[in-house]
Amino acid sequence: MSKQTILIGIDLGGTSIKMGLVSTEGELLSHQEISTRTKEGVNAIIEDMVQYAKTLVQDQGFALDQVQGIGIGIPGLLDMEQGIVRLAPNLGWKDVAIKKQLEEKLNIPVKIENDANIAALGEAWVGAGKGYKHIVMATIGTGIGGGIIIDGKILHGKKGMAAELGHIPISDEGIQCGCGNYGCLETVSSATGMIRKAKEVVTQGRPSLLTEQYVDKMDEITAKSVIDAAKLGDHEAMQIVNRAGSLLGKALATVANLLDPEIMIIGGGVSRAGDILFNPIKQAFHEHGLKNIIDSMEIVPAQLGNDAGMIGAASLFRFL
Amino acid sequence: MSKQTILIGIDLGGTSIKMGLVSTEGELLSHQEISTRTKEGVNAIIEDMVQYAKTLVQDQGFALDQVQGIGIGIPGLLDMEQGIVRLAPNLGWKDVAIKKQLEEKLNIPVKIENDANIAALGEAWVGAGKGYKHIVMATIGTGIGGGIIIDGKILHGKKGMAAELGHIPISDEGIQCGCGNYGCLETVSSATGMIRKAKEVVTQGRPSLLTEQYVDKMDEITAKSVIDAAKLGDHEAMQIVNRAGSLLGKALATVANLLDPEIMIIGGGVSRAGDILFNPIKQAFHEHGLKNIIDSMEIVPAQLGNDAGMIGAASLFRFL
Repeated sequence: MSKQTILIGIDLGGTSIKMGLVSTEGELLSHQEISTRTKEGVNAIIEDMVQYAKTLVQDQGFALDQVQGIGIGIPGLLDMEQGIVRLAPNLGWKDVAIKKQLEEKLNIPVKIENDANIAALGEAWVGAGKGYKHIVMATIGTGIGGGIIIDGKILHGKKGMAAELGHIPISDEGIQCGCGNYGCLETVSSATGMIRKAKEVVTQGRPSLLTEQYVDKMDEITAKSVIDAAKLGDHEAMQIVNRAGSLLGKALATVANLLDPEIMIIGGGVSRAGDILFNPIKQAFHEHGLKNIIDSMEIVPAQLGNDAGMIGAASLFRFL
Repeated sequence: MSKQTILIGIDLGGTSIKMGLVSTEGELLSHQEISTRTKEGVNAIIEDMVQYAKTLVQDQGFALDQVQGIGIGIPGLLDMEQGIVRLAPNLGWKDVAIKKQLEEKLNIPVKIENDANIAALGEAWVGAGKGYKHIVMATIGTGIGGGIIIDGKILHGKKGMAAELGHIPISDEGIQCGCGNYGCLETVSSATGMIRKAKEVVTQGRPSLLTEQYVDKMDEITAKSVIDAAKLGDHEAMQIVNRAGSLLGKALATVANLLDPEIMIIGGGVSRAGDILFNPIKQAFHEHGLKNIIDSMEIVPAQLGNDAGMIGAASLFRFL
């Protein structure tokens, strides 16, 4: 049995729990994804994490006492010091002392962190942000999440709620956001925002590949549908992607002007769209960023995909 | 002669040098303001600082060896580590090793910091931000400067250029900013921005107190002229102040959503305008800020006025 120490990183989501065994150099040695038994309550989920942590470690020939720590990324309002999940709507959790519970059951130190932040930590460690200490990451999915790293450390803010990139007010279209406000970046540049625009095209019967393909099945439109149509030169789709990218670039310029970072990383499925999305992002970024700040700053796609969360969660024990 | 240690804070501007003797509790014991002899070159300015530092200390019955340090706020691009002014257009300076020069002449440790940041440090120490560790300060003047304090420390960013609040892209009016970009906050909410709008009113002869008062002397319009007219109920002036406040509030909401601070401080002469400016600021702030973040967050005027810079500069030696 090896004597080296290893880390466990857990990306706890409302749909699935991703658990990874990570080396102290940030290599994902093995991982497992299981469904989140949200309906069965807190204990079922904690039992699953305990069970799969054990098998994950043992299957790779390690012992539990070789695990230096378990980092967990959680979508919700956290008390990080105490390791308590104050509120996690996707999990149906309120005031769950997950650190204490897991530490008692596994006798391994546990730390928790916001899910958007662990992705940034993962990319910072061994992904697109490797070698940088001032990093901004935007994750484009159903919503838009953010993670900000300043001088190598996650920016938490007073209440642990910093880096809400998705809620930068940026659009005058007057769409209401899930947060209750109007015109947030998320209403335009998220997958949801692009899909909403595509549905408008189809509903209004405007000439477009989108209308041709989805007139009878509007609910099947995804951000990928829009991006694919844009890549084929469809005018309406191109406009949607352009606008999403352009406002995202403007928002990133805002963040750059405030934080003077070294690199901007864009994650989430949409980030695989390539130039058709990145070109308008970069153009708006250069239009609105201060020259001295953004001069040599790159905007790059994330590299770790779905693994970023596990690796970043494990990195909470990186320097111990 | 007293045995206590004291601090010197210098607010070095293109027009004047403000030098203050500051207690280790942040009290401004005495201060002096002299003209900046910009035209006479670097040495003249440094000679003045040396000379006035000595008399400032001695006039209050202290000896130079009681001075723990000299902090200097400087408008420009700085190498803070080495204490070198890389570029300060207002002073006409390029690569001036001010730390080394002053330390040699006075035998007292010297630190330098950006001028927008020292104002924030001053307010954080004994002004409107006292007791808070996560502070955003916007200083409204000819332009709009910013200072961001996270966990008690100034946010510098990678190149020391963070907190450029004035260059948040926020307006669709298409006014070009001094930075070269279009629609920066500074083009609307600075004194300059308000004056520009007032001149439009006068030039177009629109019915307004501004037109009546300034038709023959447009160059005399100040931000105070506009605010005073607005306070008298003048419709055009109210619109200008409303728009300036409203976009400033939206920009501050952006900053709050990104940084999750505890308090927002507004400084500069315009900040004395009172409710007529602060009401639209607060309204837009609450429209665009995330409820959980801004819930109990206050937006307050700065308290230290022109002294903030000297006190904040002195605070660079606060914890030594």
